[in-house]
Order: sequence, then structure tokens, then C-alpha cells
Amino acid sequence: MAEEPTVDPQSLERLLLGRWAQTRLTTRATLTDEQFHSVPGLTLHEHRQRVRDQLQGLVTAGAVHRAFPRRFGGSEAPGANIAAFEELVTADPSLQIKAGVQFGLFGAAVQQLGSTHHHERWLPGIMDLSIPGAFAMTEMGHGSDVSSLGTTATYDVDTEEFIIHTPFTAATKRFLGNAAEDAKDAVVFAQLITRGVNHGVHCFYVHIRDDDGEPLPGITITDDGLKGGLNGVDNGRFRFDHVRIPRDYLLNRYADVDADGTYSSAISSPGRRFFTMLGTLVQGRVSLSGSASAAAKLALIGAVTYGNARRQFHATSSTQEEVLLDYQLHQRRLIPRLAATLAISFAHEKLLAKLDDVLSGRDDSEENRQELETLAAAVKPIATWHAVETLQAAREACGGAGYMAENRLTSLRADLDIWVTFEGDNHVLLQLVAKRLLTDYAAEFADADVAAMANYVASTAGSAVMHRFGLRRTLQSVQDTGDERRSANWFKQTTVQRSLLSSRVRQMVADLAGELRHATKLSSTERAAVFNAHQSELIEAAKAHADLLLWESFTEALSQVDDAGTAEVLTWLRDLYALTRVEANLSWYLCHGRISAQRARTLGPYINRLLARLRPHVQDVVDAFGYQPEHLRMELTTEAEAQRQHEAEEYYRRLRASAQAPVEERIVLAKRAA
Amino acid sequence: MAEEPTVDPQSLERLLLGRWAQTRLTTRATLTDEQFHSVPGLTLHEHRQRVRDQLQGLVTAGAVHRAFPRRFGGSEAPGANIAAFEELVTADPSLQIKAGVQFGLFGAAVQQLGSTHHHERWLPGIMDLSIPGAFAMTEMGHGSDVSSLGTTATYDVDTEEFIIHTPFTAATKRFLGNAAEDAKDAVVFAQLITRGVNHGVHCFYVHIRDDDGEPLPGITITDDGLKGGLNGVDNGRFRFDHVRIPRDYLLNRYADVDADGTYSSAISSPGRRFFTMLGTLVQGRVSLSGSASAAAKLALIGAVTYGNARRQFHATSSTQEEVLLDYQLHQRRLIPRLAATLAISFAHEKLLAKLDDVLSGRDDSEENRQELETLAAAVKPIATWHAVETLQAAREACGGAGYMAENRLTSLRADLDIWVTFEGDNHVLLQLVAKRLLTDYAAEFADADVAAMANYVASTAGSAVMHRFGLRRTLQSVQDTGDERRSANWFKQTTVQRSLLSSRVRQMVADLAGELRHATKLSSTERAAVFNAHQSELIEAAKAHADLLLWESFTEALSQVDDAGTAEVLTWLRDLYALTRVEANLSWYLCHGRISAQRARTLGPYINRLLARLRPHVQDVVDAFGYQPEHLRMELTTEAEAQRQHEAEEYYRRLRASAQAPVEERIVLAKRAA
Repeated sequence: MAEEPTVDPQSLERLLLGRWAQTRLTTRATLTDEQFHSVPGLTLHEHRQRVRDQLQGLVTAGAVHRAFPRRFGGSEAPGANIAAFEELVTADPSLQIKAGVQFGLFGAAVQQLGSTHHHERWLPGIMDLSIPGAFAMTEMGHGSDVSSLGTTATYDVDTEEFIIHTPFTAATKRFLGNAAEDAKDAVVFAQLITRGVNHGVHCFYVHIRDDDGEPLPGITITDDGLKGGLNGVDNGRFRFDHVRIPRDYLLNRYADVDADGTYSSAISSPGRRFFTMLGTLVQGRVSLSGSASAAAKLALIGAVTYGNARRQFHATSSTQEEVLLDYQLHQRRLIPRLAATLAISFAHEKLLAKLDDVLSGRDDSEENRQELETLAAAVKPIATWHAVETLQAAREACGGAGYMAENRLTSLRADLDIWVTFEGDNHVLLQLVAKRLLTDYAAEFADADVAAMANYVASTAGSAVMHRFGLRRTLQSVQDTGDERRSANWFKQTTVQRSLLSSRVRQMVADLAGELRHATKLSSTERAAVFNAHQSELIEAAKAHADLLLWESFTEALSQVDDAGTAEVLTWLRDLYALTRVEANLSWYLCHGRISAQRARTLGPYINRLLARLRPHVQDVVDAFGYQPEHLRMELTTEAEAQRQHEAEEYYRRLRASAQAPVEERIVLAKRAA
Repeated sequence: MAEEPTVDPQSLERLLLGRWAQTRLTTRATLTDEQFHSVPGLTLHEHRQRVRDQLQGLVTAGAVHRAFPRRFGGSEAPGANIAAFEELVTADPSLQIKAGVQFGLFGAAVQQLGSTHHHERWLPGIMDLSIPGAFAMTEMGHGSDVSSLGTTATYDVDTEEFIIHTPFTAATKRFLGNAAEDAKDAVVFAQLITRGVNHGVHCFYVHIRDDDGEPLPGITITDDGLKGGLNGVDNGRFRFDHVRIPRDYLLNRYADVDADGTYSSAISSPGRRFFTMLGTLVQGRVSLSGSASAAAKLALIGAVTYGNARRQFHATSSTQEEVLLDYQLHQRRLIPRLAATLAISFAHEKLLAKLDDVLSGRDDSEENRQELETLAAAVKPIATWHAVETLQAAREACGGAGYMAENRLTSLRADLDIWVTFEGDNHVLLQLVAKRLLTDYAAEFADADVAAMANYVASTAGSAVMHRFGLRRTLQSVQDTGDERRSANWFKQTTVQRSLLSSRVRQMVADLAGELRHATKLSSTERAAVFNAHQSELIEAAKAHADLLLWESFTEALSQVDDAGTAEVLTWLRDLYALTRVEANLSWYLCHGRISAQRARTLGPYINRLLARLRPHVQDVVDAFGYQPEHLRMELTTEAEAQRQHEAEEYYRRLRASAQAPVEERIVLAKRAA
């Protein structure tokens, strides 16, 4: 038997910190300051005030300006900016989201959709927080379906103004961070109408409150009130009653309206124009993926550390109880989540690098931009669901202790809950991924019917940005597993894992294409019915694709590990990731003859052995996440439980050693009745 | 094609209200009073005070005394008492749990474990709340493993007192409801030690605070502080420093200590004595199952009603968007949960009837008591996990609206989170169910090795009460499905469903017995390793058994439906419950040759068709849950969304009809660019 490998925490930590290691470390150092830490039990009012103050603290610390232009004091480093942003989740997700609204949505819209004069006029105030702002996209009636927004921006040629108007209640802007109390200004997404033509959704800069904080004439603001989490963010609603703004308040980088009302745009396709203008959303999705992976890491540090200290029930010894993590069930609950967290972490690192390439202009090609959008749409749903479920699994694995606010698992879970919905509902995003899979499949076979059907899927799935895709790579990676089926360690082979994961995507897409290809000949109602009858399978295909993406990222990361022991343990974790995904979809593999029943029966036991093999190393892995006590702030991760056990053991030992103990103690160890 | 059936809401509501319909309706009527309703956003202090006042309100309303003896003003109706208790979840789970601690744990321990003189002295004060009390079982070091509690109660023959003592920090009582602020007295579980012998855990009555609310000498009280939910309950810790109580403060129904320190008990087996004294816990488990099913019903009323009103994306029409519940994915997210909720509801009704039989003395046989314990241990985990997951699924299905505190889904979820842990950790309970399955299997084959192994499983799984079981019934229900496999509607046949669910339990237990039977010859360490290597399978077997129990309850309930249309729709829901359980474990059926790959591929499509068939009826089903607006208190279930849509439609209609609209409105419907 080979020597037992050892994880080198420094090596693994370096790998996980990735390309923006220094930025992450700097931000983590900033966040050790108590001023940035969440305080449980604050009222809505206190929490909002604390977050407001914290946000100013981040500005002072220079922690949140990296994406902005150098001439305004930024560093034009979009990737580093997101890396820093992601770390904020350890401080307080409310602070993070408030920062995200101000700089990543409101500020980024001005920067990315506006022109130089907009930048000069507003970016300095946005950056120093003298102009708090809202990102007014979502309406009561429309969240995911942005193209159906009801708010209008009608050009009035007489006064050279746009009239921003909420024509009915459902068009009221809703769930806007910063809106209820703070926003002085906002970027407002509305249907641009000029000369009797609706040119679709565009973005406008609108003043919201006067210097006393009162709503400006024509603007009604309502507080969204208490939420299931993130209560440090003041979400609210805007309703506009014929609010007039100057013509040049249209953020006109991609489209403009002349004084005489003539509409022009460098992007001729209205669809592409719309997607381009919605491109600001992608960095929100990317940053949520990274933050979600950070939150899952916090949860696992808590649950693994506690699971390595806490003992319950006598199993192998009558004097010492069993450590929780020695139980197979506990391993099953936590270690596969650790493996998935690493997979997401590595996939996110690739995603972030691509975002940096695009937003820095280093590789701003249409194709790369579209690939970024598609990757983000696949990873964000998986990462955010995973974080919420891992926080819950950690909470349950820590029992009653997990439920105490002092251990933060419940509040982090409550805060991250909405992440599966905002910045693109997870199911809507996955549906768009499925559309890309179908489109790529159609392109491969030059199948016009499938391509048309894919377009139809996209139009019913929503208007979020979604473009080129990696199906071709998927196709190439399908391999014949032929002889390998006979080898003993079949499941642990990289080629087998790749083949299992990629062949599933390919087969599912091919099956769907076959089912949907004739629907283009049907009436719209019948076509909708055919599509709807396969909606679950579309989502499943997109998830299968995400599984493959994550596995590929994990596998690529293995080649970057410089320490042999670390590489071996990480390879086991990569195997575990692959095999738990196969196990979760085992019936599919059986139904489609990809795995025999005989082999399938060996999978569960194989995974269990893998868990036992990994068990001695999981503490090293979570330690390598590199978070300090100031980031964790959980009693679970302190020595408290171990000390309590030590005290109890000492007590029993002392009693055994001495008959001089006080009467009630001496007899504790007396022979038990029975 | 047969005529489309119709659900008769009155008929279904009657069925669901069950045996204690009148008690439930009376309690629901009481709870329409605003004084009992939760208020979001209270501080810890305000919430605790509100719940304290509400609890007094429930006493005044006569809503919480049904289980107590008639001579003290109760009605000796344990089943009705639990039925009423379950309804409290709609008011505020904190109020419910506070009531549960005071009456269902503290009061019930005095009633069930004490003698007449204890009843006379304390029950009146407990009932009228002049004696608020705590149930001091759990310690920092031990939750599930009650037999390992560290607190000692040592008999001092000189003074005829017990000395209650916390010998080390981990023996501090923790997570005790009512402890942090209110409890004047407590029932304390401690190792009874007399004449140098530890007789195991017994229950003692202890005064905690003086009339000014100050802790009595020797007692240290700590506030557990803020939790992930249930913050209206003041959980806290007790530490005892040689606190002396009179000899007759031992609650001595099942065991006593004479003045000279002689221990006696009518129950000779220490193990059975221990389980009997822990029997007070069973009503907690039963009532949590019922409340969890009520909470799941609230969630589904919210999500189904909103899903029937909310529209998003144009699919079949260019003028009207699609209702959410018409999407297959939305049906997949909600309707199987509706089916499972009904299954749990029917299983709970049986469980509650059994509890009433046992606690009323109508059938208090050892066998019936044990069957109750086992049923409760199987249903409580499934019901509580289901409630938490259904609240989350409803939250996500309602998007951002689901996250608003005003819709209560997030707060109910946060409150119910800990239900999967307290009153018996779900995994520990399932492990005990698995132990019974193995014991029954061993009894059937007179296999001493398996029986010994089953005992071993139980001893490591904890000391919660767990006894006789229904495996024999399971065995009898296994049927040869032979020819039926060829029929077209195989999956919808009752005999097929029963065979699929029951054969799985049986096969899993047989496989486990085969794996474990030789382990009795091994050393304790090796035996522990063998057991541990099959822990996940033990849990899976217990879950499979619970699936079958729920399905049987649902199937039995079908025979009680008096309306043909209702019966047909409920039968579809029963089919859906069975088939989604089979689908969730489809790989098992394929691996074990119980379902062919060819047939397995038809299951998903069959379920999807079943969902589409059920879709028109789900609103009727949730309406039949019978909750009023005062119980729901969710904007989701009001007409608000429909009204907003109506307003928007009117707006668009008006514009189409008239060219006289104001300029900015007239052009909204102008031809869209592209």
C-alpha cells in the first residue's frame, strides 16, 4: 500500500487564492477589523445604519474601487474588483450586496453604458458615496423577463426631455437595493419611445431624492420592508409620474436619440443591442458564484472543525465516545459538499479570468463575451444552490449548536437564500444554457429546425444575456470507454469520468433535439405545449452540462498543484465530485445503458471507501481555505468544545484515580445498575 | 375519455380535519384573533414578551389544557390536545414551542412521571402559568444520547435529599425553552445515584427561581441568546452546584428511593425503565409531525395560489403571459410536494390516533406503546424535513415575493429549521427505525446473529425510545407483480405501487442483515467498523420504510373519501406520491432488477402527464386545507397580484381601443423596432 499522502496547506491555499491572491489577502486583512462584522439581532433600522457606516468604511479603506477608471482613482481591474467583492461575504452579506448595488450595478451601469460626460459628472460621487444610487430594473410585474418591463421613457421633442413614467402598478420598480432610504439617484431601465416607435429597454439616469433626502416631484418611494435576510440593505420601490429628465441622461454608449428625436445605434440588431446593454448583469452573476463558494467554505470550516471535535455515542470504546466525522453518515453529509465546493471554486476562477479579459478589453470579442455570459449562467445557479444547501447541511450536522446565531450558519443561509433568485433566477438561467446546448447541436448538424426551436426556447426563457457555448468541446471530449470497463478501478479513471459526464450531456441534448425538431412546424400554442412537456429535461441537460464544466475545471486545477501529497488528496476529491454526480443521476446511466447494473451496485460502496480515505485529510483542506477567526466568528471553530470534553474526561479520570473524591462524585463511576 | 373529475372541497376538508375536526376548528377560530399572530421584525426582547402574553391568552381561551386530568380542569384527551397544539403553528411557531415546553414537556413530565401528590402540588400552577417551567434534559455535551447525561442526582441518606449537581461544563443543561427568563421550576433529568450505585437517568423536580425571578442558590442561568428562529422562546442553560431537593421531588411513578436509600422500581429491566421514562418525548415527536404537515400546507397554499395568478413570459400568446403553474417545471416543483403533504397528513392522523389510544389508557399495551414510538420515529423525520424543504421550494417558486417577510415563508422556514434536530435528531431516529427493521427480520428467521447486531445498532444509535415494528406487515404486502408488468398502466396500479415500495424495504433489510450478521463475532472495534460501513444504507432502509408507511396511510385514506371526483383526484395524487418516491430511488430498482430499463424510461414522462392531469385541481386541493386569511397572512394569497395584472391589461386594452390617449401612452404600443 502506498504511503499515506499529506496535504500541504500552504500549497493548497495558494492554489485556491488563485490569480488575485494578493487582492484577496489584502481584502481579508481589511475585514479583520471589527467595524465590518455583522452583529446578530439588530433591528432593521440599526442594521441599515450599520451597513451604511460600513460601506463608508470600505470606501475609506480603498476596498471597492478597483473596477473604476484610473483617472477617477480606480485601477481598471475588473477581475481584482470582483475578487475583493467576493471576500465581503465573510463580513456581512448585507454589506456586500449594498456595495454590489452601489458600485457593481449602479456605478457599473453609468461606467459601462454611459459616455465620458456621464462618467465625469457622476462617477466621482458614486465612488465616494456622495451619490448613493439604485439600479432600477426589476418591476413588480417583471423580474426575469426584462424585455417586458412596463416603465416608459418617452422622448418629448419640444423640451428635449425624456418622460419617465410608470403607466400601471405592476410597472412599479421593486426590490431595489438602496431605494428605500439612501438612493439620491438611480439608473432606470425603461422602454425608449421616440417618434412613435418603441426601441426597447434602455437605461436612463434619474435623480430620485433632493438634498434633504425627500423624493423629487413625481417620484413615490415605498419601503419593501423586512425580508428573509439581507436586512442591512434598504430595498424599496419607485413609482414615476411623468418625471422629466434631460435628453442626455440617456446612458448612450450603445444607442442615442438626437435632439429631433432620431434614434441611432451602432448595434443594428435590436436583440444584440438589448443583450449588450444588459451585459452589466454578468459581473453580478460572476461575483455571486465566487461569494457563494466562499460562503460554502465558511460553512464547511465550521461543520468539519466541529465534526472533528464533537463526540457522541460510544461505538468503539466504552470510555471515549466517537468523533462525529468518524461516522459514515457524517462523512456522507459533508465531504461530497467539500468536493463540490472545490469544483465550484476552480470553475469560478476560470469564469473570473474570462470576465477580466472581457471587461478589461484584453479580449472583448463578441465570442468571448458570449462565452462569458453562458459560463456565468451555468455556474451561478449551481454555486448559489450549493451554498444555501451546504449552509443548511452544516447547520444540521452541528445540531443545536448550528442553530445558534453566534455560529452564523443560519444568518448566512438566510442572507444567501435570495441569491438563487436575484441576478437571474437559477431556473431561467439554466433554461438559457439549455438553449445554447440546442443551438450548438443544431449548428453542428446544420439542422435548421432545431436551431429555430432553440430560438423559441430562448424567447420564452427570458431575455437575460446568453450566447456562444462550449458544446463543441463537450462533443470532442466524448470518448469510447471500451476496454476500460473491464479494469478494476474503472470509476477513478479520468477518462471514464469525463466520458460519463460528457456523454450524458450529449445524449440528453441529442434526445431533446430529436423531440423538439418537428415542433417548428406547429402552431404557436402547440409549439409551446411541446416545449413545456420537455421543460424539466431542458433544465436537467443544463445541469448535466454544469456538472461537466465543474469537473473539467477541477481536473485542470489538478495539473497546477505543486505538491504531490496535495495533488493526491485533491484527485480523490475530484473523483468524489465526479462519482457523486454520477450517483445522483445513476438511473439515467442505467436506463441508457452507460453503466451496467452490476457495476452500478459497486458505485455506492466505492464512494464510501473514498470518503473513508479522505476523512483524515478534510481538516487540512478546510484549513487551507485560509480564513481567520475574525472571518469565521463561530464558536464551532474555537477550542471550546474540545476544552469541554477535556474537562469532562479529566473529571472521570480523576474519579477513577482517587477514592478521596466527594461522595456524590465518587459514586458516579459506581457500577451501573443493569 | 372519461369526464373530468371535480374535487369537492367540503368533502376533502372533512377528510383532512380527521378525527379531531371539531377541536381543530375551535382552535383555528381562536387563532383568528390578532393577539396570537406573529409580528415580523420584533427584537428578541419584544418577541419573548409578546409570546409570553400570547401564551397567557391561550390559557384564558382554554386552548391548551386538554391533556390534563379532569379534576384540574383538563379533559384527559391527549389526542385532541395534540390536534389543538398543531394548529398553533399558523399563529407563531415560537408561541407553539413555548406552549409545548410548558404543557407538553414540563407539565407532561410531572403528569406522566409523577405521582398524585406531585400532580396536586404542581399541575394547577403549571396549567395556569403561575409556575412556568423548563424541561432540563439536553446538555452541552449530550443531546441525542440521553443515557450519557452528566448531571448527577445523588441521594444523601442523612438529610433525605437528592443533590443535583453539574460535575463539569459539558454537563450544563442547554437549549432549554423557558429557561433564560421565565422558568420558576424545572424537571431535570439526571443520573440517579444511591448507595454507591448509578441507576441511570431519572427525572427530578427542581425549583429554579425565587418569587423575584432570581436564580436560587447554587443555580447559574445563562441565556442561549439569539437563534436562527423561534426567537420568541427564551432558551437558556442551567448549571447546578450541589443543589439539594427533597427526596420526594423524584418523579417516582416508575421508580423510587426509600428514606434509607433503597432503590425500587416496578419495571425490572433498566433499559425498559429508561425507555418508559423517556416516553414523554413521543408526544413531542407526534405533534411536530402534525405541525410540520400544517406548515407545509401553508407553504403550498401560498405557492399554488400565487402560481395560479402570477404570469411571466409569453409562450402561447403574444398578448397574455403564461401563468406560472402552467409551466411543467413549476408543476414539478410544487405538485409532488402537495402529494407528499397529503401522505404525511394521513400518516399523522393514524399516528395521532395511536397516541390517543396509548395515552388515554384505551390501549396502553407495551406492544402498542412500542408501535407508537416506532411510527413516530419514522414519521417525524420525514415530516419535518418535508416541511422545511417545502417552505423553501415555495419561497423559490414565488421568487422575490417569497423572500418578503410579509409572506411568512422565510420566517416559518427559519422557525421550523430546528425541528429536524430537536425532539430526536432525524438521523438518529431513522437509525432506530432501521434497528427495528433488522430486529423484526431476525425474529422472522430466528436469526440470533442479526438480532444481536440490531441491538448493537440501537446502542450506538442512541437511547430514544424505539420498539416494536411493522416489518411483518411489510413482508406480507410483498407481492408477485408477474403479469402486471405487461399491462399498459402498470405504474398506476395499487398492487404495483405497494409491491415496488415494500419489496424495496424488504430487500434492503435482507441485504443489510446479510452484511451485518457475522459482525457479532468480531471485536467491538471491528464490529463498529462494519456497522459504520453500512450506516448510510441503514438510514436509506428506514427512509424506504417510511415511504411505504406514508403510501399505505394515503391508500387507506382513499377508501374514506365519500365523493367520487375527490376520490379520483386524490388517487392521482397518491399515484404521484408513489411514483415520485420510486423515481427518487430509480437506480435502486434498476440495479436490483425490479424495474426494467425500458419501463424505467417511461416513468418520468408518466409522472409529467400525471402532473398535467392534476394541474387544474391543485387549487381546489389547497383550498380544502381550510385555512382562513387570518391563518395565512400572506400577500401571496390575496387578490393583489391578479388586480395588478388586471390593471396592466386594462391599460394595454385601453390604448389599443383609443387613439386619444396622452402622447406618451399612445406610442407605447407603437410598432416595436425589430
